[in-house]
Parts: sequence; C-alpha cells; structure tokens
Amino acid sequence: MAFVYKADPVRGAEWARLFAAKAPDIPFHIWPDTGNADRVRYLAAWMPPQDIERQFPNLELFFSTGAGVDQFDLAALPPELPVVRMAEPGVVAGMVEYATMAVLALHRDLPAYIRQQREGRWAAHRVYPASKRRVSVLGLGVLGCAVLDQLRTLGFQLAGWSRTRREIEGVTCYAGQEELPTMLASTDILVCLLPLTPETRGMLDGALFQHLPRGASLVHVGRGAHLDHQALLDALETGWLSGAVVDVTDPEPLPAGHAFWSHPKILLTPHIASMTQPETAVELVLDNIRRHEVGAPLIGLVDRARGY
Amino acid sequence: MAFVYKADPVRGAEWARLFAAKAPDIPFHIWPDTGNADRVRYLAAWMPPQDIERQFPNLELFFSTGAGVDQFDLAALPPELPVVRMAEPGVVAGMVEYATMAVLALHRDLPAYIRQQREGRWAAHRVYPASKRRVSVLGLGVLGCAVLDQLRTLGFQLAGWSRTRREIEGVTCYAGQEELPTMLASTDILVCLLPLTPETRGMLDGALFQHLPRGASLVHVGRGAHLDHQALLDALETGWLSGAVVDVTDPEPLPAGHAFWSHPKILLTPHIASMTQPETAVELVLDNIRRHEVGAPLIGLVDRARGY
Repeated sequence: MAFVYKADPVRGAEWARLFAAKAPDIPFHIWPDTGNADRVRYLAAWMPPQDIERQFPNLELFFSTGAGVDQFDLAALPPELPVVRMAEPGVVAGMVEYATMAVLALHRDLPAYIRQQREGRWAAHRVYPASKRRVSVLGLGVLGCAVLDQLRTLGFQLAGWSRTRREIEGVTCYAGQEELPTMLASTDILVCLLPLTPETRGMLDGALFQHLPRGASLVHVGRGAHLDHQALLDALETGWLSGAVVDVTDPEPLPAGHAFWSHPKILLTPHIASMTQPETAVELVLDNIRRHEVGAPLIGLVDRARGY
Repeated sequence: MAFVYKADPVRGAEWARLFAAKAPDIPFHIWPDTGNADRVRYLAAWMPPQDIERQFPNLELFFSTGAGVDQFDLAALPPELPVVRMAEPGVVAGMVEYATMAVLALHRDLPAYIRQQREGRWAAHRVYPASKRRVSVLGLGVLGCAVLDQLRTLGFQLAGWSRTRREIEGVTCYAGQEELPTMLASTDILVCLLPLTPETRGMLDGALFQHLPRGASLVHVGRGAHLDHQALLDALETGWLSGAVVDVTDPEPLPAGHAFWSHPKILLTPHIASMTQPETAVELVLDNIRRHEVGAPLIGLVDRARGY
C-alpha cells in the first residue's frame, strides 16, 4: 500500500514530513514520483491525473486537496471510487477568519476609508450597531455554518439559505429558489459560500442583485464562476451595491487589465480566504484511511449526484 | 433641574429625541442653548465650557461624551464635581468590531493584498493558523477586556498588560513597566487600548518597538499622543515592524502631506474605531442620574488621581 500526493510540492514536502511522523508504515510519494503504481491505494490531488484507472489500477480512495471538488470533472473519475473533500479544521478556521474580516470591513466602511486615505481625506462615517446590520450567508455547509457561528458572537442579524432546509439557532433559515428573494430583500451584507454546481454557476447575477436592497454589499468566497463579473460592475456603477470583497474570480489569476484590479469599491484578494493546513489535513486524511479500512463512514465523502 | 448637551449637534438632536421619550421630566438643551443656567444639574460634553462653575453654579454631574477624558484638562474642573466616562455598550461593541477587523487584517496580510491589488499582482501569502499568532493588548479596562473576549473566540494566543495586575481567563497577564518587555518579546500583533495619561503619553516609541520581535505589527486604537509617529515610520522603513492599522493620530485630523496618508504599510482610519451610540449612551446617562439621586455608585466614574 502507498500514498501519492499530487498538488503544490512545497506543501507536499510538509505532508511527507507529517506522514513520516504519524504514519511511517505508509510509503509516501510526491507526484510525478509514484513508486510502484500498482501499490498506490490512496491519492490526494488538486487535479486528478488523466487516465487515473490505468495509472493507479488499485486506487481505493481519492482525496481532493481543496475544500471543493469543482476544479475537476467528477464524471471522469471511476464511478465506484470514493471522492473525499478536504473539510479539515484548518480550512474551516481560515474561512471563518477571512469572512469575519470581510463582513466587518463592509460593516465598518473599510473600502471607503482606504479610498479616503489615498485621497488624504479625514472624514468619519456614521457607525451602525451590528444589531442593525443584516448578514445573510448563501450555502449552509460546514463553512457557512462555522462563519455564522462566528458572526453571531458579534451581534449581527443573521440569515442563511441552502438548497434543502436547515435549522440553525439564531439564524433565520431559507430554502430553495422560491424563498431566496425573501431573504435577499432583507440583507445588507451577502456572503457567498455555495458549492459550485451546474445549479449555482452564475447565480450571483444582475437578477439576484436586484432582490437586494439598494446599498447592500457582497462578500464572495465561493467560487469564481458563481459570479457574473459584469453584473457586479454594473451594480456598483449604479450604486445599487455599495461595495464588495472578492476572493475568487473566473478565471484565476484575474487577467491583467480586468476592472476588478482598480475598482475603488472592490477589495480583491487572490483566492486566499482559506487554505488547507498540512497538519490538520494529514490528520483528516489518516483518519479517513483508518475509517476506510474498518468500513466506517468517511468524513467529507462527496455525493456524486449532488456534485459536492 | 435640567440637562445640557455640548457636543456634535447632529447626535445632540438624537439625544434630545431619546430624552423626550425616556425622561420627559428632564428639560434637555443643546449648547449654546442652556435654558436657565441656574437650573442645570447635568452636563454632557466632549469639551467642558470655560468657566464651568460660573456658567453652571448648580452642576451635580459631568458626563464626557467620549470613552476617555483626556481631551480636556481634568484639573480645570471643580474638584468635587463627579466626572463620568462614556463606558456605554455601544462604544464597547464598536471597539470590539474595529479591533477584531484590524487584528484579522494584519493576521491575514490585508495591507499587502491592498498593495498587490493596486499593482495588479495575484500572489498568495501563506496562511498561519490563529493558534500560532500571538496578540497582546496594552490596557485591560472595559475595552481591552472586551476585545480580548472576542479575539479568544478566534483562537489567537492572547496576552494583556496593565498598570496593576489583572487576571483574565485564557490571557497571560503582565503588570507594570518591569514586565512589559517580556510580553512584547512574545507578541506578533500589539493592540494599544491604553488610557492617555502622563505615564502613557508617547509610550509607543522606538524603544518599545525594539522589544517586539522583528516582523510584528501594531493596531493603534488608543489616543494619538500615545504614538511617536516618526518611530513608527522608522520601524516600518527598516522592516522591524511589518505593518500598522492606525485609527488615532496627533494632531487630528492628520495634516495634509503627513507620511501616514500614503504609507503602503499603514492602514489609516479617521478616529472611527468606536463612537458613542446615542441610544445606549442616553440609557447609561439616565441610569447614572438615577444612581446619583439615590447615592448609588456611578458607572464609569473617573478616578481623578489615576486620570481615567
């Protein structure tokens, strides 16, 4: 039995060190080294190799090194191969930090103050209490729920939306397309944490923005392809939306000259909201390998039909 | 008996509305209107009027509309006049929001990403878990403790320093000048929430920065006069400090052309970290008036000897 890692080699070296310490019985290879490929039972990758079945005929588990699995074509993987997402605590904590920072930045007018600093202008804007600010989260998976838990401690009015109904203490929950406009109509700051699926692709568009009240703002930490870039630019141009914090774009990196780079109402970061932390990721991978060996349920197993 | 408000008139109008609803028996005047000055028993002001004793001979309580009382000369007030600071929940909540945003911004390299956006550069920096980031707060009053409570929920390593020893769960507490260097030596992000007194004036200077490890950063939400501006610029120039979020300066507004306006490693806001919220401020003032009438202890009473 052996394990192959196929993603960023710098982090791969950390995985190798952690495997050597925690699971010295599992031979660990960093792609393109695979050792004897017939022995490889576990593969962790950002993008699976082409011809995965021929390459690794005895593969038992496939781990995505990302929190999502939208970066590759699920249908191209062998239908019986279990695919596991990286729902590890490091990814969750990073997202909570970033989303909290972004919501507070919009709540407290940071984009305006950054512009004012550039212009040399000292002028205060009124502070509204968090109890009067309505923050809504699209997507109530592990990440969405953890972000809501943190925002709750700051006293915001909270709502959440998901495909199927959820119940979360202190959060007004909405479900399905038909309830979405109701939530949007009472949202000041919208946080996108949806998985990318055919249903959610392009969902952040002009029609959705029209349901928000004038002056609302956006934190986009889902996937780049959720967002219609031009619709966001239009909504900021007319003043319908007041600002946005954007961490993901389509394509990535964002091309030179794209309007987001220089937009005074957009705070742009290069897909850094959250990253898999080697230590907690390796722990989760090893835990899942143990679970697989004894037939226990896997943590983060992807539902191929739902696509996440 | 009557009440006079002497500060920002826009917020004064909100105070007037709240007094009319909650305490219609107390005549409320906005400076320079005082009604019959002999009847004025309560004064709320950012700056007390000159000749306060002659102006209001029957004054019983003086309320600062700010969280501190350093903006005026305490010694110029009648020695027996109780002076009350605005330690109201709105001020505390605003400071918790801002300090949390600022600490997360430094923790997650936001100043660098703002520079990169301006330069059109897509490059990720490594994310460190909050559990490996050491945040220390100078000043363990109501504001400092509330900020620590919030930062604790994000998992940071916490320390705090005050003149006299405090004990706070989950926070390594240091006291007095002799213990300060020890705390600074194990601080990645330093938050200044000190009161401004003769002892703390100019305390954030080159000597203090030298005790921090190389690469540390600063959140300055105390008072402008705590900070030696040139020492901060020097420490950023040599790379000893990596960044700063600065909300208070000396003087305010910051003069045109000052180096902070255009500094790529300083995020500058115009003294907006926290503002008194009329609703909660009026509630606290009325509560203190009731306490005064029955001889109960006042909330936020200033110790003239300590100066805060």
